Amino acid sequence: MLRADVTEAIRAAVFEELAAVGFARMSIEGIARRAGVGKTAVYRRWKSKLSLVLDLLTAFAADGLPAPATGSLYGDVRALLEVAAHALRHPVASQVIPDLLVEAARHPEITDAVRGVLLDGQRGVVASVVRDAVARGELAEGADPDRALDLVVGPLYWRLVVVRDARLPEGYLDDLAAAAVAALRA
Amino acid sequence: MLRADVTEAIRAAVFEELAAVGFARMSIEGIARRAGVGKTAVYRRWKSKLSLVLDLLTAFAADGLPAPATGSLYGDVRALLEVAAHALRHPVASQVIPDLLVEAARHPEITDAVRGVLLDGQRGVVASVVRDAVARGELAEGADPDRALDLVVGPLYWRLVVVRDARLPEGYLDDLAAAAVAALRA
Repeated sequence: MLRADVTEAIRAAVFEELAAVGFARMSIEGIARRAGVGKTAVYRRWKSKLSLVLDLLTAFAADGLPAPATGSLYGDVRALLEVAAHALRHPVASQVIPDLLVEAARHPEITDAVRGVLLDGQRGVVASVVRDAVARGELAEGADPDRALDLVVGPLYWRLVVVRDARLPEGYLDDLAAAAVAALRA
Repeated sequence: MLRADVTEAIRAAVFEELAAVGFARMSIEGIARRAGVGKTAVYRRWKSKLSLVLDLLTAFAADGLPAPATGSLYGDVRALLEVAAHALRHPVASQVIPDLLVEAARHPEITDAVRGVLLDGQRGVVASVVRDAVARGELAEGADPDRALDLVVGPLYWRLVVVRDARLPEGYLDDLAAAAVAALRA
């Protein structure tokens, strides 16, 4: 295999291994076996299980996060929800993230790493949406981006990841966008 | 030990074992050892790991769910959020539930069981709040209790369990209640 192919094979194996056995039971040996490479090929690229997983999350987080600029708060929130609904239906979100949250409860360094990779990107996007809405006079000066993230992403995360209702009712995202805008302006 | 004491010792051990090693690696042997009882004492009471954990969740879910009746939608939502904030800060919520969600992605029977134990109770409480608000004219006829649950609990779950921000800003729950009421009425 070429170097780049080995890297991709390892990334794919990490994802399969995470989905199959979870972070706690995942091993570098298991990943190497699944990727069809030697353990040293893995260790040459990543120093630990955690760095492997963070690499996977980084790719996922970057994939899912264009910053919308539709010209209205409703439009931007609706666009954010579309992207979030797509991302939250991905197995990385439904399996890997809850898995890491469990580990994070035991290992604070995982909390910080996951927070850095996943939340910082989302916070940046939402902060830009809030800033634009303030500039247009749709939100009051000083609107808090963290509160906005809770109100926009929270209900959808709850529905898709906790309640685990993959088929959203017809028009659910439109309705949720309208509800989130009302909440943001409250 | 008396019979009831054995039962309580096992329950406490299940919780400690779940927090320490997680559902996947938890074993009846480990629980028995931690509780200071024989394996048969555990098997006499519960037939599997899953039934032990569901028993724990049932106690937790029942604990956390009085139905508020304050006379206003804002008051009821604020009361729900108070209870939810307390429950979501409990280690059962921050560790055990995400843990079970991870397992649920691999084993659908866990999804159904967790959904039954946790969500049915919450759905019932929120349905009662929505019904009262409709009767008072605060919400439109036909308001959907599942949507209400997403809008009320979702943002707080996101903040406390996903973002893992245990110290809520001053006045956060008051603000969230106002935002949720605006969202419900949108």
